[in-house]
Amino acid sequence: MSQTTDTICAISTPPGIGGIAVIRVSGPKAIEAVQSLWRGRDLASVRHASAAVGEIIDNDGNILDQAVATIFRAPHSYTSHDTVEISVHGSVYVQSRLLRLLIDTRLCRMAEPGEYTRLAYLAGRLDLAQVEAVADILAARTAGAHSIAIHQLKGSLTGRIRELRERLIELASLLELELDFSEEDVEFASRSTLIQLTTDIISRIDRLTDSYTTGQAILNGYPLALAGATNAGKSTLLNLLLDDDRAIVSDVHGTTRDTIQDTFSIGDTLFRVTDTAGLRKTDDPIEREGINRTCKVIHDAPLVLWLIDHSTTSDLLFSIWEHLRPALSGNHILLPVVTKTDTAADPSVAVRRLFSDLTRLPGIGEMQIEAPVTHTTADPSTLATLRDAILRIARPHTGYQPGDAIITNERQRQALLQARERLAETHTALTGGLTPDLVAHHLREAIDSLATITGDITTPDLLTTIFSRFCIGK
Amino acid sequence: MSQTTDTICAISTPPGIGGIAVIRVSGPKAIEAVQSLWRGRDLASVRHASAAVGEIIDNDGNILDQAVATIFRAPHSYTSHDTVEISVHGSVYVQSRLLRLLIDTRLCRMAEPGEYTRLAYLAGRLDLAQVEAVADILAARTAGAHSIAIHQLKGSLTGRIRELRERLIELASLLELELDFSEEDVEFASRSTLIQLTTDIISRIDRLTDSYTTGQAILNGYPLALAGATNAGKSTLLNLLLDDDRAIVSDVHGTTRDTIQDTFSIGDTLFRVTDTAGLRKTDDPIEREGINRTCKVIHDAPLVLWLIDHSTTSDLLFSIWEHLRPALSGNHILLPVVTKTDTAADPSVAVRRLFSDLTRLPGIGEMQIEAPVTHTTADPSTLATLRDAILRIARPHTGYQPGDAIITNERQRQALLQARERLAETHTALTGGLTPDLVAHHLREAIDSLATITGDITTPDLLTTIFSRFCIGK
Repeated sequence: MSQTTDTICAISTPPGIGGIAVIRVSGPKAIEAVQSLWRGRDLASVRHASAAVGEIIDNDGNILDQAVATIFRAPHSYTSHDTVEISVHGSVYVQSRLLRLLIDTRLCRMAEPGEYTRLAYLAGRLDLAQVEAVADILAARTAGAHSIAIHQLKGSLTGRIRELRERLIELASLLELELDFSEEDVEFASRSTLIQLTTDIISRIDRLTDSYTTGQAILNGYPLALAGATNAGKSTLLNLLLDDDRAIVSDVHGTTRDTIQDTFSIGDTLFRVTDTAGLRKTDDPIEREGINRTCKVIHDAPLVLWLIDHSTTSDLLFSIWEHLRPALSGNHILLPVVTKTDTAADPSVAVRRLFSDLTRLPGIGEMQIEAPVTHTTADPSTLATLRDAILRIARPHTGYQPGDAIITNERQRQALLQARERLAETHTALTGGLTPDLVAHHLREAIDSLATITGDITTPDLLTTIFSRFCIGK
Repeated sequence: MSQTTDTICAISTPPGIGGIAVIRVSGPKAIEAVQSLWRGRDLASVRHASAAVGEIIDNDGNILDQAVATIFRAPHSYTSHDTVEISVHGSVYVQSRLLRLLIDTRLCRMAEPGEYTRLAYLAGRLDLAQVEAVADILAARTAGAHSIAIHQLKGSLTGRIRELRERLIELASLLELELDFSEEDVEFASRSTLIQLTTDIISRIDRLTDSYTTGQAILNGYPLALAGATNAGKSTLLNLLLDDDRAIVSDVHGTTRDTIQDTFSIGDTLFRVTDTAGLRKTDDPIEREGINRTCKVIHDAPLVLWLIDHSTTSDLLFSIWEHLRPALSGNHILLPVVTKTDTAADPSVAVRRLFSDLTRLPGIGEMQIEAPVTHTTADPSTLATLRDAILRIARPHTGYQPGDAIITNERQRQALLQARERLAETHTALTGGLTPDLVAHHLREAIDSLATITGDITTPDLLTTIFSRFCIGK
């Protein structure tokens, strides 16, 4: 556990060689520690948010580097403690040597991962949702992921959670008023009003919980599965989508046994695509295991591209469907992709016949099925059309309006689900006519669950888990 | 070619994800460019060497990041132009997006490699030797390499070169005085004094040129070759020195055909070790090519570890020596390493016998031969002893006294060699009694050669070559 009275130091810029690197020192002895290695203007005299030019000197009086030290004074720094940012030449040697010299002063120690941000949290400058936003900003690879994180850092999620908490506290205060006057058997709020309020808050929590799927799609890519018979062209399409030769392409049926997962972008939208083992009857236990995994992957992907060789007979289509169907639910979107159409006598006839066969498959009416598209390596425009179709289907599930509150991790989701469960119990207690103290008990638990999201209530374990996501230096 | 009136921008910290990253904008429009993306205190009002906290806003008014902008005003910045260092979250997305936003302002353009340092050079803040020192600092991996570079940046080499130039200019002025009075046929300096001065300067230049070898040994590692018969244990020893499994170790004779090169450190000293193909008579053309390369490697390495299996017969030793001898000169240091001594009946007898055989090899007396050491994987202490021996031999050639002028690259060496050549011609002209104008001509060429080292005389090509070593952002 970090002590807030320690002074800490770390390389804060990315690892490796660059033009410059920044070593950050923060804590009560930050200025003293740097001053002990400093030749130049007395750092104690440097004002808040000002930079001094000087030299870093080792114990033998040898110059390590020319440097700029920028001073941020407590409590106006990121950590709220005195902080010195030392900008030096971005050589690996200079960076590691300066860190060593700082630690050798015995005035500071190496920072733990995320410890600067932890100090900011402990000082009340950031709440836990904002702390997680900092980690999300650093990890963001797309405009969408970044936008969610920066708005979370600015307080969008915190604001929404606090709003929900305030409504719950309001509800609780009405009940507690009744408790105070319990001997007089009065009702300050009608039960129906309380029930209505609870239902309303539950539906707000549900909307926020639902935002998790959108958040995950934006952060990690909208999940997409490639399914179909062996040799239907799945690996070829995967390579084209990834613009890469990751999957082994061959004409031997059943080449892909492992599921292969990677991300690609169409415009600003990130997709996480999984290639799967070809669906067919097989006695090979390894291949069968691959097919089992395929079903799991398909189950988890909202959009399934079903690749069908244009020459597939009605019987074969039916047999593949038998494999595919158990993995699908009514929530899946199925996009049929008719492949290798360049070898068809009349591609449009082949597509029409297959679509007609498709619509007759038992139970397919329960799925959301899209109009089929074609794909052939002989015509690159078919790939463009396919990408357009994918983007159109995914768009409603991957959009982000700047400022929207979106939950982005499992911890936040679990806390919301817990709050919802307690509220459902509150609801049951109210409708069942239970006493106000029992209702208030459930309500307080719901309030506490929400409080863990922003860190108004927390545990050391929770903090350790959250800060373990950070790099050293942030 | 860069225009000094352009405003440039680049990511100055190492590439990748870190706690923070710094984007540097420099040039007449630096403050204006950042201000156009800035929400916070007006940057025009921020004093030199002061930092302002704010937000980076894109064209649609969306916040990209919270940021700290530190202002360095002309002429007191690194480049001598107005400079803004923007510190943002070290996410890859934020870094690249901010760079894009800056370029889209049309107030600045992407910096070329080393362009900030080029601006510093053009402003006269650094000379060319110091510019090269900046690149050397960034590349330095050891204390020695770093120490040379930081002292070169502080002017150690520049000072020595300027000192030599001043002596030459003094010499030239004596001669030019004679030219002014040429009709009167007077000699202001005796020819013998001039010859003495020239000889003195030549020997100073030679000492500086010699420092190149030390510089290279410190920068790139002291070159060390592993030589010996096939299966003498060279690859095994290489792996132990590198603490790595780079070479393929096998019991089949002639496994190592390519030369393998890598660096390792003993204490603060860096070594560049090359394993070589085993020396033996062979008809395999590929292996023969390997042996040819071996001879080249041995020729270039001042220290050759000759690995000899303890059971090697006098005849075999003689036959290996026939291969080895042509690659060696009197400047080589030969360290015999008797290997696999754990399988010898009496290791010390084996070593004595081999050393006695060694001393009788024809021509070995012309080499600097060290006392043999043993090496066996069965006894790790033999490796420690061997490493001690290597360090002891290399130390006189890898030492650096802080502040010493050392030339560190081929460009500097070529310029010195050219200056020396012109001075030798000056010397010949003086001893041959040529006219003062001819002597002065050679002398001026020598002065110009020295001037290219510090960049007092330069060409666009030379600058391009030097700055191509830099990363973008420095």
